[in-house]
Amino acid sequence: MENFVFQNTTKIIFGKNTETQVGMETKAYADRVFLHYGGGSIKRTGLYDRVVASLKAAGVPSAGDVWDFFTGKSRIETALPIGVVLTIPAAGSETSTASVITNDEGALKRDVSAEPLQPKFAILNPELTYTLPAYQTACGVADIMAHVMERYFTKVKGTDLTDRLCEATLRTVIKYAPLALQKPTDYEARAQIMWAGTIAHNALLGTGRIGDWASHLIEHEISGIYDVPHGAGLAVVFPAWMRYVYQEDVNIFARFAVRVWDIEPDFAAPESTALAGIERLKDFFRGLGLPVTLEELQVGTDRLAEMAAKCARNGPIGNFKRLNEKDVYAIYRLASAEKNGGS
Amino acid sequence: MENFVFQNTTKIIFGKNTETQVGMETKAYADRVFLHYGGGSIKRTGLYDRVVASLKAAGVPSAGDVWDFFTGKSRIETALPIGVVLTIPAAGSETSTASVITNDEGALKRDVSAEPLQPKFAILNPELTYTLPAYQTACGVADIMAHVMERYFTKVKGTDLTDRLCEATLRTVIKYAPLALQKPTDYEARAQIMWAGTIAHNALLGTGRIGDWASHLIEHEISGIYDVPHGAGLAVVFPAWMRYVYQEDVNIFARFAVRVWDIEPDFAAPESTALAGIERLKDFFRGLGLPVTLEELQVGTDRLAEMAAKCARNGPIGNFKRLNEKDVYAIYRLASAEKNGGS
Repeated sequence: MENFVFQNTTKIIFGKNTETQVGMETKAYADRVFLHYGGGSIKRTGLYDRVVASLKAAGVPSAGDVWDFFTGKSRIETALPIGVVLTIPAAGSETSTASVITNDEGALKRDVSAEPLQPKFAILNPELTYTLPAYQTACGVADIMAHVMERYFTKVKGTDLTDRLCEATLRTVIKYAPLALQKPTDYEARAQIMWAGTIAHNALLGTGRIGDWASHLIEHEISGIYDVPHGAGLAVVFPAWMRYVYQEDVNIFARFAVRVWDIEPDFAAPESTALAGIERLKDFFRGLGLPVTLEELQVGTDRLAEMAAKCARNGPIGNFKRLNEKDVYAIYRLASAEKNGGS
Repeated sequence: MENFVFQNTTKIIFGKNTETQVGMETKAYADRVFLHYGGGSIKRTGLYDRVVASLKAAGVPSAGDVWDFFTGKSRIETALPIGVVLTIPAAGSETSTASVITNDEGALKRDVSAEPLQPKFAILNPELTYTLPAYQTACGVADIMAHVMERYFTKVKGTDLTDRLCEATLRTVIKYAPLALQKPTDYEARAQIMWAGTIAHNALLGTGRIGDWASHLIEHEISGIYDVPHGAGLAVVFPAWMRYVYQEDVNIFARFAVRVWDIEPDFAAPESTALAGIERLKDFFRGLGLPVTLEELQVGTDRLAEMAAKCARNGPIGNFKRLNEKDVYAIYRLASAEKNGGS
């Protein structure tokens, strides 16, 4: 187990009708606010009206180019106090210090982490996710699972408690994702997925471990160029990454198969147990209506070499197995079509 | 699942040699400190010298009688910023808002919770627990498990994620407690138990649930009168409480047996599965050298009626099953000797 520092100060307000508390929570930090939201669904669902009832517009404390923060040219020293009303369980940014954006110029998707980005409060009402389209729900689930799996596959020993907390979180999502798709207004299913999405990325599951994170970087090159949801890209990349690296530690992959997917261990052949777990993950994504090959994402093979070069531009990536440009290219090839994936 | 608010702001610094950071962390809050510690073992182990190297004495912001906070006569409105260097994983107070003391006058053990008691930082170095006597280690383990189990047994439905997080935490402690007793300097065992002790009581495992807490109250009446470690008292009380209440929801107890103790479920007789889980818990405590009857604690039957009356003085206790004075007395009787426990 590695030394670590853990602190997550975000006040989480979880449950039905909690969005009506946004005004009261905001009052502690500011009288004026900058309201940031997505494509407009919050207006259709009425959430916008409920939130705006107590909020007015404000400014940002930085005058420079925001892209500089993502290239490392500028450092994030301060930020407006951030409050979140979550409408899709996926990124986990409701309690994390991370932020990801895409610069259309150069098709670059980059992330940055900084303490001032830690939200002061996050309002999590599972009912606000009832109207999520099935595909977005599934993409969010893949992202949540990826956040756990990036931490789960580690070379660090002595991580039993967080191994099991990871498995608990994965099993919960695996149980409830199909239920949420079947009945979008199933409160318990939406609630379990939403809370799992936060736990998956609030840093708890990574305590004492060194996560891998190669799959996230490999995926960012896909959704940086193509109009692909991050979660869908992860559903394609993660199984391919697994097939490429599992021999680094077959036992962890066998444990993943047994404890997460209830596969009966083949004690004589841990490798076949390990592979069965990866196939089960792929089947699960398929069952949610997600793509598991680049072909299904309508991503051709023509730019794979360029993507691999961009991905490994600063040297090898990943920690479970260090991957250079050639490795990343091989993973894109594995991911490209079923016949290459070999399942 | 119940609505909830979750926020735990304590900065946790976990791992080897972390106690040397106490000065730096304290500096952010004060120039003077009030150093509070136990029976003197920290002087024998040299921890005192390492901590004092950067700290000096101070005062407290309240002039009244501290007992008034525990009777509800006074409310805790403020507190000195609290920093913790943990030397026994047990109470979980390193990241909680709770405090428990005993008033020798009247042999009253009472608790109080208040936000200002939330520590600003907690330094968790598992090496500092190497010198813990075996019995204290075991008592701490029983306390940790009790904190999980008080939350685990709930009537609230739709708690799958936290059910599994609870089970993950229990399984980890169950695996590592015997290893820590066998080899007190086993870093991984000490580290897993220490981190589990924090997770068990930082409020995460109770999110969306209504905990029971009767066993804690029933135990407090024991260690309030007798010179008994809280954890040893819990090892006696918890199995007795379980036997008294399990019929309220046999399925939860069967799940506890199967998922926590790997007992093969008897689908034709869930009740026997449930009872097997309770017996396994009792066996586990016994194996750690803990008492499982009041007799072994050298607590006679003469004051049981008095204890039951004190325990239920404000009306029924517990949430999984509401218990009145008569119920509490019956649990003390069940706990009093093996022949009453019926195992």
